[in-house]
Amino acid sequence: MLAQMFMSWSNRGMSGPVQHSAMRGSNLALVLGAVAETGPLTRSQLTARTGLTKSSISGLVGDLVAAGLVGEGQPAPTRERGRPGSVVAIERQGAAGLGLEVNVDYLAAMVTDLGGTVRYRHTVAHDNRDRPPAEVLADLARLAAAATDACDEQGLPLAGACLAVPGTVAAGVVRRAPNLGWDDVPVDLPLPRSAFGLTLENEADLAALAELRAGTASRDFVHVSGEIGIGGGIIVDGELFRGAHARAGELGHVVLDPDGPACSCGGRGCLERLAGLDAILAASGAADRAELEARCAAGEAGALAAVASAGRWLGIALASVTNLLDPECVVLGGVFAALAPWLGDAVEEALARHGVQPRVVVSELGTEAAVRGAAGSVVRRVVGDPAAYLLSREDSA
Amino acid sequence: MLAQMFMSWSNRGMSGPVQHSAMRGSNLALVLGAVAETGPLTRSQLTARTGLTKSSISGLVGDLVAAGLVGEGQPAPTRERGRPGSVVAIERQGAAGLGLEVNVDYLAAMVTDLGGTVRYRHTVAHDNRDRPPAEVLADLARLAAAATDACDEQGLPLAGACLAVPGTVAAGVVRRAPNLGWDDVPVDLPLPRSAFGLTLENEADLAALAELRAGTASRDFVHVSGEIGIGGGIIVDGELFRGAHARAGELGHVVLDPDGPACSCGGRGCLERLAGLDAILAASGAADRAELEARCAAGEAGALAAVASAGRWLGIALASVTNLLDPECVVLGGVFAALAPWLGDAVEEALARHGVQPRVVVSELGTEAAVRGAAGSVVRRVVGDPAAYLLSREDSA
Repeated sequence: MLAQMFMSWSNRGMSGPVQHSAMRGSNLALVLGAVAETGPLTRSQLTARTGLTKSSISGLVGDLVAAGLVGEGQPAPTRERGRPGSVVAIERQGAAGLGLEVNVDYLAAMVTDLGGTVRYRHTVAHDNRDRPPAEVLADLARLAAAATDACDEQGLPLAGACLAVPGTVAAGVVRRAPNLGWDDVPVDLPLPRSAFGLTLENEADLAALAELRAGTASRDFVHVSGEIGIGGGIIVDGELFRGAHARAGELGHVVLDPDGPACSCGGRGCLERLAGLDAILAASGAADRAELEARCAAGEAGALAAVASAGRWLGIALASVTNLLDPECVVLGGVFAALAPWLGDAVEEALARHGVQPRVVVSELGTEAAVRGAAGSVVRRVVGDPAAYLLSREDSA
Repeated sequence: MLAQMFMSWSNRGMSGPVQHSAMRGSNLALVLGAVAETGPLTRSQLTARTGLTKSSISGLVGDLVAAGLVGEGQPAPTRERGRPGSVVAIERQGAAGLGLEVNVDYLAAMVTDLGGTVRYRHTVAHDNRDRPPAEVLADLARLAAAATDACDEQGLPLAGACLAVPGTVAAGVVRRAPNLGWDDVPVDLPLPRSAFGLTLENEADLAALAELRAGTASRDFVHVSGEIGIGGGIIVDGELFRGAHARAGELGHVVLDPDGPACSCGGRGCLERLAGLDAILAASGAADRAELEARCAAGEAGALAAVASAGRWLGIALASVTNLLDPECVVLGGVFAALAPWLGDAVEEALARHGVQPRVVVSELGTEAAVRGAAGSVVRRVVGDPAAYLLSREDSA
């Protein structure tokens, strides 16, 4: 319907090269978006779904095939009579997104293709707090190089890269990542030239978007990214809620005990000081998350008590979140996903005690959510604006 | 622009009685909305602003004049040459909204006209917790009758009524208002027949909408309704944020002290138990808000300490709110507006200590915000859908 309005608009005297190319771009996105979301579609299904004419669809599909973003082929045989039309489907080799992540105790890289399939993943555990940012970024550059090599080997053209960081970002700069101790750190990785280059995003936001695309939760939820710090990603009606200055979702700094332990934000008793991974490790005596999980699985009382205490604090914070935001669902992500068997009851009890009962879901993406969201954000950009992607490839050709 | 699209749509084969009347309705709203928002406009200004043709504007203005919603007259003289065209302006006698409010310690009624001017106001202080709902509603009916009499005297046609309550609502029923002790109380007031009848809304939501229309804050803010209970109204990009089940904004139940005093929600240490009016009165020893304000104004240490303590708790809660929602601005409303001279510093200090500094604004509407928002919501409905208003008047004629 949008396309029809667009065309009638243009027909009423606004046509010309600029309008024509804007219209073509929007219609390319309409067609690519339809097959990306629904799966393989025949040309007549595309006509019905987009409201575009048969001949427009024909031209647009032709352009997308030439660009390698979609392919045409025979559908799987059905029991219906008659010869089925050929179907247009996403070309998995069409374009790939590189996701990168710097977090407090690991680095990660992931490549996803245009169909959303993970084609490469690599995570390296490392405490990044004791090192200068340049050293961390040099390690990250090595991870990125290995990932782009993997793209080459698999014949995947890289559309761009996105770096997830546990903090606030601006163009090309990590503004403030308190748990890393980074302030205004510029990021410039030696990546191969690509259509969209490198962007930076908050890790909790990316994790929530990955969760949205994975479809485990609904379209109105709060995703909890539990790591050393605790981030929150708020999805409202299927969109990321960013706030007035793109700083919304700082769940880790919900104040639960104003006389509690000091926090990197300057306050006291913030959730992440009471329920973040460091707090759990300190209370349990475990050296790292693997040992913590092993001790919980073995039923060790100290580890179970430490995890349950974190669950109680997390539940109290989520009661406040629910009273404020009224989400349909709360998603436990990051380390909280792995710890859910021993933490979930305490979360639910604390919620119920405070008179709210949002649906509580455990993320299936776990600590991979943010880097997956980063790779996915590049792919979504190709699907959302194929014309820009094609244009920049022509420019660099 | 919208109107043009609408017309071109209809011209492409969708015309007919239903489409025509929908189009007329949407265009009536476009014209009425333009003069309601901008003030008096000439017909050619209306043509430019709405994208409708001169003859359409002529017909629509004629309909709105006949309905008594706008008037035409000479504008104020300017220094520009030439004879100015006549201007179309909101008819203040055109339609009025009746706002009503039941709160824990008062009842209120207010009438605003189509131009947003308050034409009648009446507030009665009364502790409504010690009385059965039927008795409270009988008192409210008397307030409403006096208000509708005032409308008659001023020749104001009543378009409808809206009742603000400190709790959750469904159609015609107060679902749960814990501070009143009301659960599933049906509300049926003997009001004169009107276009839109009686609707129920949460008082904190209405107060935030009144604040939005008053324009004291921005388009992204959290309005704090401080009374015996504490409500929050969240405005995002100029719209009320309701949440997945219309229960968002329950600021009073942000948990600040999990071992603190028991709350009506079942939890402990909720903000309203620590900073609500009852908590302040108990800590200061004042009998009511008038005495409290007088003691603060006189510089009495006990009263000042009680108010500052409430301000500190409120500031801590607002730090959590800011970390989660990242509003541009926080508006102190209800009793917090009146207490702002003695409470504001403590709020700002607590915010700064937790590393956030949203702009803090004191409401100019104070405790009147909710009932004003209630009256305004009726008027907004007339402006937003004049066709529905006119249709229901024809039906009842």
